[in-house]
Amino acid sequence: MENNTRKISWKTRLHEIIYEADTKEGKFFDVILLIAIITSIVLVMLESVESFDKKYHDFLNIGEWIITILFSIEYLLRIISIQKPLKYIFSFYGVIDLLSTIPKYLSFILVGSHNLAALRALRLLRIFRVLKLGRYIGASNRLLVALKSSRAKIAVFLFFVLIVCIILGTIMYMVEGEENGFTNIPKSIYWAIVTLTTVGFGDIAPQTPLGQLIASVIMILGYSIIAIPTGIVSSEMTKNNANENITNTQSCPSCLKENHKEKAEFCYNCGSILNP
Amino acid sequence: MENNTRKISWKTRLHEIIYEADTKEGKFFDVILLIAIITSIVLVMLESVESFDKKYHDFLNIGEWIITILFSIEYLLRIISIQKPLKYIFSFYGVIDLLSTIPKYLSFILVGSHNLAALRALRLLRIFRVLKLGRYIGASNRLLVALKSSRAKIAVFLFFVLIVCIILGTIMYMVEGEENGFTNIPKSIYWAIVTLTTVGFGDIAPQTPLGQLIASVIMILGYSIIAIPTGIVSSEMTKNNANENITNTQSCPSCLKENHKEKAEFCYNCGSILNP
Amino acid sequence: MENNTRKISWKTRLHEIIYEADTKEGKFFDVILLIAIITSIVLVMLESVESFDKKYHDFLNIGEWIITILFSIEYLLRIISIQKPLKYIFSFYGVIDLLSTIPKYLSFILVGSHNLAALRALRLLRIFRVLKLGRYIGASNRLLVALKSSRAKIAVFLFFVLIVCIILGTIMYMVEGEENGFTNIPKSIYWAIVTLTTVGFGDIAPQTPLGQLIASVIMILGYSIIAIPTGIVSSEMTKNNANENITNTQSCPSCLKENHKEKAEFCYNCGSILNP
Amino acid sequence: MENNTRKISWKTRLHEIIYEADTKEGKFFDVILLIAIITSIVLVMLESVESFDKKYHDFLNIGEWIITILFSIEYLLRIISIQKPLKYIFSFYGVIDLLSTIPKYLSFILVGSHNLAALRALRLLRIFRVLKLGRYIGASNRLLVALKSSRAKIAVFLFFVLIVCIILGTIMYMVEGEENGFTNIPKSIYWAIVTLTTVGFGDIAPQTPLGQLIASVIMILGYSIIAIPTGIVSSEMTKNNANENITNTQSCPSCLKENHKEKAEFCYNCGSILNP
Repeated sequence: MENNTRKISWKTRLHEIIYEADTKEGKFFDVILLIAIITSIVLVMLESVESFDKKYHDFLNIGEWIITILFSIEYLLRIISIQKPLKYIFSFYGVIDLLSTIPKYLSFILVGSHNLAALRALRLLRIFRVLKLGRYIGASNRLLVALKSSRAKIAVFLFFVLIVCIILGTIMYMVEGEENGFTNIPKSIYWAIVTLTTVGFGDIAPQTPLGQLIASVIMILGYSIIAIPTGIVSSEMTKNNANENITNTQSCPSCLKENHKEKAEFCYNCGSILNP
Repeated sequence: MENNTRKISWKTRLHEIIYEADTKEGKFFDVILLIAIITSIVLVMLESVESFDKKYHDFLNIGEWIITILFSIEYLLRIISIQKPLKYIFSFYGVIDLLSTIPKYLSFILVGSHNLAALRALRLLRIFRVLKLGRYIGASNRLLVALKSSRAKIAVFLFFVLIVCIILGTIMYMVEGEENGFTNIPKSIYWAIVTLTTVGFGDIAPQTPLGQLIASVIMILGYSIIAIPTGIVSSEMTKNNANENITNTQSCPSCLKENHKEKAEFCYNCGSILNP
Repeated sequence: MENNTRKISWKTRLHEIIYEADTKEGKFFDVILLIAIITSIVLVMLESVESFDKKYHDFLNIGEWIITILFSIEYLLRIISIQKPLKYIFSFYGVIDLLSTIPKYLSFILVGSHNLAALRALRLLRIFRVLKLGRYIGASNRLLVALKSSRAKIAVFLFFVLIVCIILGTIMYMVEGEENGFTNIPKSIYWAIVTLTTVGFGDIAPQTPLGQLIASVIMILGYSIIAIPTGIVSSEMTKNNANENITNTQSCPSCLKENHKEKAEFCYNCGSILNP
Repeated sequence: MENNTRKISWKTRLHEIIYEADTKEGKFFDVILLIAIITSIVLVMLESVESFDKKYHDFLNIGEWIITILFSIEYLLRIISIQKPLKYIFSFYGVIDLLSTIPKYLSFILVGSHNLAALRALRLLRIFRVLKLGRYIGASNRLLVALKSSRAKIAVFLFFVLIVCIILGTIMYMVEGEENGFTNIPKSIYWAIVTLTTVGFGDIAPQTPLGQLIASVIMILGYSIIAIPTGIVSSEMTKNNANENITNTQSCPSCLKENHKEKAEFCYNCGSILNP
C-alpha cells in the first residue's frame, strides 16, 4: 500500500514523535499533550461548578472547543502515522482518545452527552507512559514486579473479602432489617464492605445491640486482615531487595568469591586486589 | 451392610463426582454447583429489593423453586453416596446444605422463615474447595501457613485490643454520659471498637472536650497498633520466602533428600558428597 | 517482726497462691479471680443498660454485693500475705484493686460514686499475667521485644503526627472558621487527628473548597504515613525472626561450622556426623 | 566588616547559644524556647475557645504580649548574632519566626490579623532540631534514610492514587449527579479521596445502587493498595536492618576501617589480615 519512501519516512518521523518518547521532539510532544490533557480536565471540572460556569461560560466554551479541535487533529495524526490504523482505533488508548474527543461534537445532537467529556480524565493514564522517560522507571518497574508476583495471593485475598462481605451483609440484613436502613441485601453487602474496609461512612449504622455486636466483629476482622495484603506486598518487596543486593557486586579475580561490599578494594576472603 | 459390589462401585463413582474434584466429572459437578449457588444468591438478593420483587415476583419464585429442587436432589445424592451419612449430615457443610435447602419448604408453614434462604451465602465457602484445583493452591496455602504460624501472636493482639476497648469504652461512658449518645457501657465499648479500628461511623461522636481528648488518644493508638498485626504477618511471610529460597537447591544423589543449605557440600541426611 | 515460723510458712503458702501462678492452687486461684472479674464487668455493663436494670435491679444489686465482698476478702488477703504491704497498696495493681472494691461501699455516702465500679475493667489487665502461664508466653514476649526495640522510632513518629495535627488543625480553623463547625483550635486539632488517622467520624467536615483541598492533603498524608509504624514493626519482627533461625542450631563437632538445618544429621561442610 | 575581635567572640558565643545546641547554654536556650513556643500555642488555642476567652481575656492578652516581646527579642538576637542576616531572614525558619512575632503588633492596624498568631504552631517544627540532641537521633535518622530511599516509589504511588481519584471522582459525578450531593467534579474527587483513603466522613455518600457498587470497588481498592506504601517502607527498613548487621563487626587493625563483611578475613580497604 505504501510505496513512496519519502512519504514513509515522513510518516515514520511523525510516528516517532507521536507514539515514542525517545527523541527530543517526542518528549516535547508528550509534555505538550499532558499539559493539554490537564487543561482540558481543569476546564471540565470548572464547568461542573455551577457558580463558576455562570460567570465564565463563554471563556470555558471557547477553551473546550480549542481543546476538542487539538485532540481531533492529534487523533487524526495518530491514525495517519501508524502502520495498522485499525489496531490503534480499537486499542484501549484508541477508544479513550476517541471518547475524549467526540463529546463536544455530540453536544450539538444530544443534550446530556456533554458530560462524557469527563471521561478525558482517563487520558491521564498516558502520564505513566511519559513517566517511563525519567528516573521513575526503576521505581515503578519494581512496584509492578512486586505486585505481579503477588497477584495470585491478592486475588485469593480479595475473593475471601468478597465472600465474607456477602455472608456478613446477608446476616446483618436479617438481624437489623429494613427499619434500621438495611433495606435490602445488596445494600447490606455494601454496608459490610464500607465497614470491613474501615471506611465507615455512617449513612447506615447498626441500631440493635446484636447488630452492633456483629458490626464489632466485622470491624475487628477488617482491622486485622488488612495485615494480609500488606504482608504479601512487604515480603515480596523484601525478596526483591535481597535480589538487588546480590546483583550489585563484583567477583574476586583470584578466589572468585562474590558478594563483596560495594566500595571494597580487596577481597574479604583471600586479600587480593579486586580491581587491579 | 453394603455387599453388592456393583452397587458399591456405582456409589463410589457418585461419591467421586460429588465429593471430590480430581476427575473431569467431579470438576464439572463442582463448577455447575457453584453456578447454582451464585444464581441462588443473586435470586435471594433481588427478592430483597422491594421494587424488583414487585415486578418479577413470579419469575423469582419459580427460579427459587428450581434451585431448591436442585439443592434437594444434591443433598439426597450426598447422603446416599457417602459411607457414613450421619457424619455428613452433622458436619459443618452438611448443616449449611440442609439450611440452604429447607427455607422454601418451610415458607408453606412459617411466614418469616423465607429469609433463612439468605444463609445460602454460606455455601459460597465451598468455593475455596474448588479453588484448590487451580493455580491458586500455592498462594492460598502460603497465606494459610503464614496465618497459622502467627495465630498465637494475633490472638494475643486481638485480646489486647478487646481489653483496651472495654476499658476505654467504660471511661468514655463515664466522661460523655448518656446525653451525648453514650447511653450504656456496651454501646460505649461498641463506639471504642468503631474508633480504634479507624472505621468511625460518626453515629456516636464525643461532644465534650475531655471526651474528644480521650477519643484522640484512642484514634492515635488505633492508627499505631495496626502496625502490629501487619508486622506479624509481614515477618511471617518474609520468613516463608526465606525458607522457599532454601528449597530451591540440589537433591542428594544417593538419598534423594532435598532442601539442602545453599553452600552445602555434603548431604545433611546421609553424609555423601552432593556435587562429586 | 515475724518470728513464728509456722505463721510465716502459712503466709508464704498464701502468697504463693495469690501472687504466683506456678502451682496448681495458684493457677486455680487466678482462673477463679478472672471469672469473678469478668462477671463483675458484665454486671456493671448490664446495670448501665436502663431497660435491663429496671427489670433485674435486685438481682444485679445482690450480684454486685457478692462480687464486692469477694474482692474485699481478696484485697485483705493480698495485704496480709505480702512482706511489704505498703509497696502493694501503692503499686499500680494495688490502687486498681482498691478502686474496684470501694465504689459499692461509697454508694451509701456519695450518690454518683457507683459509676466508679466501671473502673473494674482495668482489673482485666491482670489477664496478661495469667497468659504468661500458657503457650502464649513466647508470642507475647516476641511482640514486646519488637515493640520495645522500636520504641524510639515510634515515639519520633507519634511526635511528628502530633505536630502535623496541631499545624494542620490550626490552618483548618483559619480556613473553615466557626460557621463550618471548626469552632475553636482544640476542636480543629481534634478534627485533624480524626482525619489523619483515617477514622473520619463526619461530625465535623470541611465545607469550603479550600478546606476540602487541605483535607484531601491530610487524608493522603495519613493514608501514606501509616506505612511508617507498620514498616518499623515489620522490620523489627523480621530481624527477630532472623535471629531465631540462627540460634536454633547445632555446631559441627569436627569443623565447628554452625547454622545447620534443623533436622541435619551430617555437617554440610565436612560430612561428619553431627550428633554421634 | 567586623574587625573587633572581642565583638566577634561575643557574637560567636551568642550564635553558639542561639543557633547550636552542643553546649550547655545552647541546650538550655533551646529548651526554654520550646517551652515558650508551647505556651504561646496553648494561649492561642485557649483564646480561640469562646467561653474561655470571655472569662480570662485580660490574662490571655497579657500572656500574648509577654510571648510576643520575648519572640521579638529572640528574633533580633538571631539577626544580630548571625554572619549573613539576610540569609536567615529569608530562610524557612526566618520567615516562620517573623510570622509568629508580628501578628500581635499587626492587630493594632488590621482587625482579623490576630488569627495569624496561630501560625506559631509551625515553630514547633524546631523541636526536631532539639530532638537531635538526645537518643532519638539514631531513630529519626534511620526513619529519614528509609523514607528518602523510597521517595521515588512513594511519588509514583501518590501519583497513581491521584489519577485514580480524579477518574473515579469524575465517574461518580456522572453516576450520582447533583441531587445526591455530588454537586460538581472537584467535590466528587474530594469524595473519592475521602473514600479511597478509608477516611469516610459520610457527609457525602452514594445513594444509587450503581454508585454504591462503584463506591465498593473504590473502598476495596483503597483497602488493598494501602499495602503498597507499607510494603515499600517495610522492605526499605528491613534492608536498613540488614546493612546495620554488617556494621556491627570488627575494625581493621592497620587502617581502622569499620563495616567489614561478617565472615571477612582481610580488610576490604588495605588488604591486611583482620584477626591475626
